[in-house]
Amino acid sequence: MQDKLDELNARLGEIYDLQGAAAVLTWDQLTYMPPGGAVARGRQVALLSRLAHEKLTDPQIGRLLDALRPYAAQMPYDSQVASLVRVTQRIYDKAVKVPAEYVARMTEHTTATYEVWEGARPANDFARVIPYLEKTLDLSREMANFFPGYQHIADPLIDTSDEGMTAATVAAVFAELRAQLVPIVRATTAQPPADDACLHQDYPEEAQLAFGLDIARRFGYDMERGRLDKTAHPFTIGFSTGDVRITTRVKLHDLSDSLFSTLHEAGHAMYEQGVDPTLEGTPLAEGTSAGVHESQSRLWENIVGRSRGLWEFYYPRLQATFPQQLGGVSLDAFYRAINKVQPSLIRTDADEVTYNLHVMVRFDLELALLEGTLAVRDLPEAWRERYAADLGIAPPDDRDGVLQDVHWYGGLIGGAFQGYTLGNIMSAQFYDAAVRAHSSIPAEIAQANSARCMTGCARTSIGTGASSQQRSCCSASPAAG
Amino acid sequence: MQDKLDELNARLGEIYDLQGAAAVLTWDQLTYMPPGGAVARGRQVALLSRLAHEKLTDPQIGRLLDALRPYAAQMPYDSQVASLVRVTQRIYDKAVKVPAEYVARMTEHTTATYEVWEGARPANDFARVIPYLEKTLDLSREMANFFPGYQHIADPLIDTSDEGMTAATVAAVFAELRAQLVPIVRATTAQPPADDACLHQDYPEEAQLAFGLDIARRFGYDMERGRLDKTAHPFTIGFSTGDVRITTRVKLHDLSDSLFSTLHEAGHAMYEQGVDPTLEGTPLAEGTSAGVHESQSRLWENIVGRSRGLWEFYYPRLQATFPQQLGGVSLDAFYRAINKVQPSLIRTDADEVTYNLHVMVRFDLELALLEGTLAVRDLPEAWRERYAADLGIAPPDDRDGVLQDVHWYGGLIGGAFQGYTLGNIMSAQFYDAAVRAHSSIPAEIAQANSARCMTGCARTSIGTGASSQQRSCCSASPAAG
Repeated sequence: MQDKLDELNARLGEIYDLQGAAAVLTWDQLTYMPPGGAVARGRQVALLSRLAHEKLTDPQIGRLLDALRPYAAQMPYDSQVASLVRVTQRIYDKAVKVPAEYVARMTEHTTATYEVWEGARPANDFARVIPYLEKTLDLSREMANFFPGYQHIADPLIDTSDEGMTAATVAAVFAELRAQLVPIVRATTAQPPADDACLHQDYPEEAQLAFGLDIARRFGYDMERGRLDKTAHPFTIGFSTGDVRITTRVKLHDLSDSLFSTLHEAGHAMYEQGVDPTLEGTPLAEGTSAGVHESQSRLWENIVGRSRGLWEFYYPRLQATFPQQLGGVSLDAFYRAINKVQPSLIRTDADEVTYNLHVMVRFDLELALLEGTLAVRDLPEAWRERYAADLGIAPPDDRDGVLQDVHWYGGLIGGAFQGYTLGNIMSAQFYDAAVRAHSSIPAEIAQANSARCMTGCARTSIGTGASSQQRSCCSASPAAG
Repeated sequence: MQDKLDELNARLGEIYDLQGAAAVLTWDQLTYMPPGGAVARGRQVALLSRLAHEKLTDPQIGRLLDALRPYAAQMPYDSQVASLVRVTQRIYDKAVKVPAEYVARMTEHTTATYEVWEGARPANDFARVIPYLEKTLDLSREMANFFPGYQHIADPLIDTSDEGMTAATVAAVFAELRAQLVPIVRATTAQPPADDACLHQDYPEEAQLAFGLDIARRFGYDMERGRLDKTAHPFTIGFSTGDVRITTRVKLHDLSDSLFSTLHEAGHAMYEQGVDPTLEGTPLAEGTSAGVHESQSRLWENIVGRSRGLWEFYYPRLQATFPQQLGGVSLDAFYRAINKVQPSLIRTDADEVTYNLHVMVRFDLELALLEGTLAVRDLPEAWRERYAADLGIAPPDDRDGVLQDVHWYGGLIGGAFQGYTLGNIMSAQFYDAAVRAHSSIPAEIAQANSARCMTGCARTSIGTGASSQQRSCCSASPAAG
């Protein structure tokens, strides 16, 4: 059995090294690659991805799993061997059930759709993308049907990013949140919004970057195993547990944009840096789910990053960094500014309170599209109606409406959005559990000593492939989950 | 035949895309990778290299070449098809003749040797590397013997980097150069060396980098298909003809170090940027030889870069960039400073005149080691004797003597050095031919209009895999070579 386990680990190691190599190429493409490199780079990334896929779908992987399954069944569920066999089986089954012919067809279509969308969005031309989205919808249903036996056609698509969740379980969670959230939004927005003019002054780029990174480091982001660069859209990318990088963008007249995106990405990155190195090169080193990954970014961005306690420590430093801009602004005024609540049209710009309403709109529309109760051509109107009903404002055009997010135009329809809100919910749950277990946490945050416990929380939710709902935080050792 | 040619091209395309991907990973490792990424990175680069090697030694490549050889034989020698089949055959034969078992053993040994050298050099401890170098010598002989039928045991090793050259042909070229060079060195060094104190003031890093890059761009280095970064040791690396990058290092108190290394690397990079894109993904897109590659870097660094004409244009700009440092220094004084000749101990710091003597010492010692007429343990003494005889100075220790260059400690002994001097010779020949064909070149350089012809020269010597000695410059079209 040890021989078979070793062989499985060796094969998985090559797959993840190929994926890690492809990720380095992607990072370079988005940070420093000159324009002339694009054509060859597309080819190189595609080749590495194809080789990784070929190695994952090698029938020998299936034979090794068949041989190891009875052995793993005798082990505790959360043991490394049982988890490795179970999670590898899951990704192997998914990989072999989706024909290579389909993947090629789907990739070609989504690439073409993305290009059309890139032109259609600034032109506010939804009509242009209709035939593409209709085909995407067909391809999404085709993907779901590679995994028969579902209750709702969206279930296999949701399962791809949030393992173990279904349309029904997500809808139930969202209904509960929504019932409590809508009155809060109404009450908050009945009052005039906070004044955040102090955030919209001239803030030199270098100082913004350095300040955000300083907080991220104190949170626990390890620069010996990471780095911060600038890109058009912020992201986190890992090549191994020893090299997990983040990016941010900087707006000269918006202090919060770079700052909180740096803290958000640092949250994602600390999750991956926190993986036990012995899991490297296996699927156990990947995040548990999109939702759990997002819980870590939102925890650090919002629950810690926008807390009053944190800024009791950092605000005097921020004032010292930007004395002309913030010297006359009180901590209270700054705290209200970074927590301003105001319904808006764009999800990625939304505040912490209204954000989840944006996600729910998208989730419900995805389900309706997949069910066939909503036609693609009727999507813009449905979008406007929901925004008017839920947020009290409707987009004047499709550019800031249904065309705003890349997800449907660069991938499948279904499963793309629920993780954002699941992550928000879990971030609150993790923090709540952490404070119950360690009541000193809020005081430690106010002393900028915030990294200790919650990085431990992240560790408990990674590695065993159990869905995040089964886990509590800071109430058990990482090994026991 | 077209089908077979297409299949060969497709297979070669994958091999070169894997190599290009590995090169991206190497570039990242040397520029921006955090320390924690090193272990996984080593694994990832090794995996990509192994996959490329497996694809190159696939017997199907041999079958395709067998089928295509008669067809290619009917084509003109320099045609793309004939060249592709000929050059691919050459690298295929070399790849299959060297057993994978040997490559693994050799790589393991040279990696270990490099690590020992890294400690031994600063400790001035040649004794520590003796057993390693002795084994390297055995491995070098073993490598040579995979290619029997040579006249001198160094021939196969020389042929690896400078195709078509042998110990005898190199020795003859070197003897001719040496006979003319030694009197020039003696005559020059009989006079007091030029005063280059003006180069050793405070020169801020950003301005140094920008100035060097400005000249490189006017030379013709295309930043749409390249970029400049800082590394410990300058180098050029290409991932495709659309992405060829250079690096430099900056010394605050040495204006010439970064400046001329930028021009040197830009020469290498323009050679690769000049490759016909239709050759991409084949061995025809690689440089013809180490020597020809070096001819391009030395042409731009020395023959153009240190010319009086160039600085007639650039020196007023350099003075405007560094008015405090150079405002009171005349063009004449600056020109003498950047062309200062003085025998020194370190090859990489050597001036244009004495540089080739450093190379000849190493070349002769490599031959003696391989022949067995010199024992590894006697190498330091032999080194000191040759330096005293040839350059008139002997290193006081091995750190600045036999331990200075990485080549023998990170690879095989034999073939490592001759390319530097062959490149110097060819750079002069190329320039001479260029000026004969286009007498306006020196005047155009003085107007900073230097890129036109000589980039054309570089193009003529790439792509057909013919050894550089068979080529003339600017006297024929690129297609005809």
